[in-house]
Amino acid sequence: MGVGPERVSLNTATVREQWSLRECIEGCARHGIKGISPWRDKLQECGVDEAARLIEAHGLTVTGLCRGGGFPAAGAAGRQAALDDNRRAVDEAVAIGARCLVLVAGGLPEGSKDIAGAREQVRDGIAATLEYARSCGLPLAIEPLHPMYAADRACVNTLRHANDLCDELGAGLGIAVDVYHVWWDPDLEQEIKRAGKERLLAFHLCDWLVPTKDLLLDRGMMGDGVIDIAKIRAWVEAAGYAGFCEVEIFSAENWWRKDADDVVETVIQRCRSAV
Amino acid sequence: MGVGPERVSLNTATVREQWSLRECIEGCARHGIKGISPWRDKLQECGVDEAARLIEAHGLTVTGLCRGGGFPAAGAAGRQAALDDNRRAVDEAVAIGARCLVLVAGGLPEGSKDIAGAREQVRDGIAATLEYARSCGLPLAIEPLHPMYAADRACVNTLRHANDLCDELGAGLGIAVDVYHVWWDPDLEQEIKRAGKERLLAFHLCDWLVPTKDLLLDRGMMGDGVIDIAKIRAWVEAAGYAGFCEVEIFSAENWWRKDADDVVETVIQRCRSAV
Repeated sequence: MGVGPERVSLNTATVREQWSLRECIEGCARHGIKGISPWRDKLQECGVDEAARLIEAHGLTVTGLCRGGGFPAAGAAGRQAALDDNRRAVDEAVAIGARCLVLVAGGLPEGSKDIAGAREQVRDGIAATLEYARSCGLPLAIEPLHPMYAADRACVNTLRHANDLCDELGAGLGIAVDVYHVWWDPDLEQEIKRAGKERLLAFHLCDWLVPTKDLLLDRGMMGDGVIDIAKIRAWVEAAGYAGFCEVEIFSAENWWRKDADDVVETVIQRCRSAV
Repeated sequence: MGVGPERVSLNTATVREQWSLRECIEGCARHGIKGISPWRDKLQECGVDEAARLIEAHGLTVTGLCRGGGFPAAGAAGRQAALDDNRRAVDEAVAIGARCLVLVAGGLPEGSKDIAGAREQVRDGIAATLEYARSCGLPLAIEPLHPMYAADRACVNTLRHANDLCDELGAGLGIAVDVYHVWWDPDLEQEIKRAGKERLLAFHLCDWLVPTKDLLLDRGMMGDGVIDIAKIRAWVEAAGYAGFCEVEIFSAENWWRKDADDVVETVIQRCRSAV
């Protein structure tokens, strides 16, 4: 059981209140973590060229760039703005050598109750972005988010839906599996198998706490919650995934308040003991 | 669009901080609401015989008793206690002439990460309770809860799973569809159709607020959120459901703090305008 730091990727969200991207990169190097996954705000703050230089100098693998998506909008101008922004995200991902651009679909447009319509917009937005991403050789990874985010963050909420999109849209589109979002799904094992090696582009970890006090910012360190992470890892690896375990923990009241080196040490320990 | 108060049922949870069951019954009569759905704590506080007398005296239909379920437990004694309690719940539902006993499956036993195992316990618990309920002529309605409750309240989280349980366990088991729990599901229309008239035993309403500030107690009044309730009602009615629209709103910071008669008036208005 468990993975060593050479197979761990630090998603910058895990220490977003403590460290800049430069500090994350240097922190990974210091602790022997070999992967990193930046969010775009941190990347832009650092500068894309400087980030690419630092990442290469420290020999890190970029397991993904977080994130594109956010496709549904109330009008044509909003939809076009989303497409333009996704194109920039593809460019940034390419510039830092990311293995994929993670897509978070987006929720309902302001004032809308039409979730089926939002899902159509997501499909069309991914299709348009995919065309450009293919021309750059960059895989897109759609990340289904937990159904509690269907209204305001992402209306792709199951691995089945993500697989259906991959079936429909074809090569270059894969999936980021985050245990937090999918652990409850009775079809999880089957849909991981269906995704297979080709589509499984990223594997994200944290834990579901009981009780969960906030819908967004109360995620747990691996081992502190109820998700059988080792079982889900066994499923993705049985399906052919051989990539990194990316740790992404939103934790306003706990981990974001601690010393970042201590957080990273805990991440490493828990990746050995609870993954 | 909309339903009149003669097709509305008041779930006592909607005014649980303001009214006893007796007050709910009298309130329904005063406002022309023809259905009621008591929670067991309110029922026991009133006394089952007295409640049955009051409900009959006011000519109300009992659209359901909330609730049985809670099957998974760490040990045999806990599981037996759950079965015993469900038997008592069946007796209470029969005593007040309820159309069904609503079952909320239960979450993971303390310390467990085995959601598949919890789901097996739920199936076995329903099977045992169903045997007794059939002998009493009482339908059981399994209510899939939103996936955000999978850990601590109910590990049956989709209509598909509920339909699968009905397929497996047979006659006497149906489903309570609560729009709050299922609105996000891409398979919703199809699974409502699959359930059909026979299985659709109850239809519960409230709304999903954006933002939602609490996982349990921040549900909205119909029309204040993002759920296309009229569309879902059209689906359940197209499938043959001709029963009541039961309003069940957990709202610690808003509706539970208002005058209960005002809440009921708002329920009636919104059932006309947003259902």
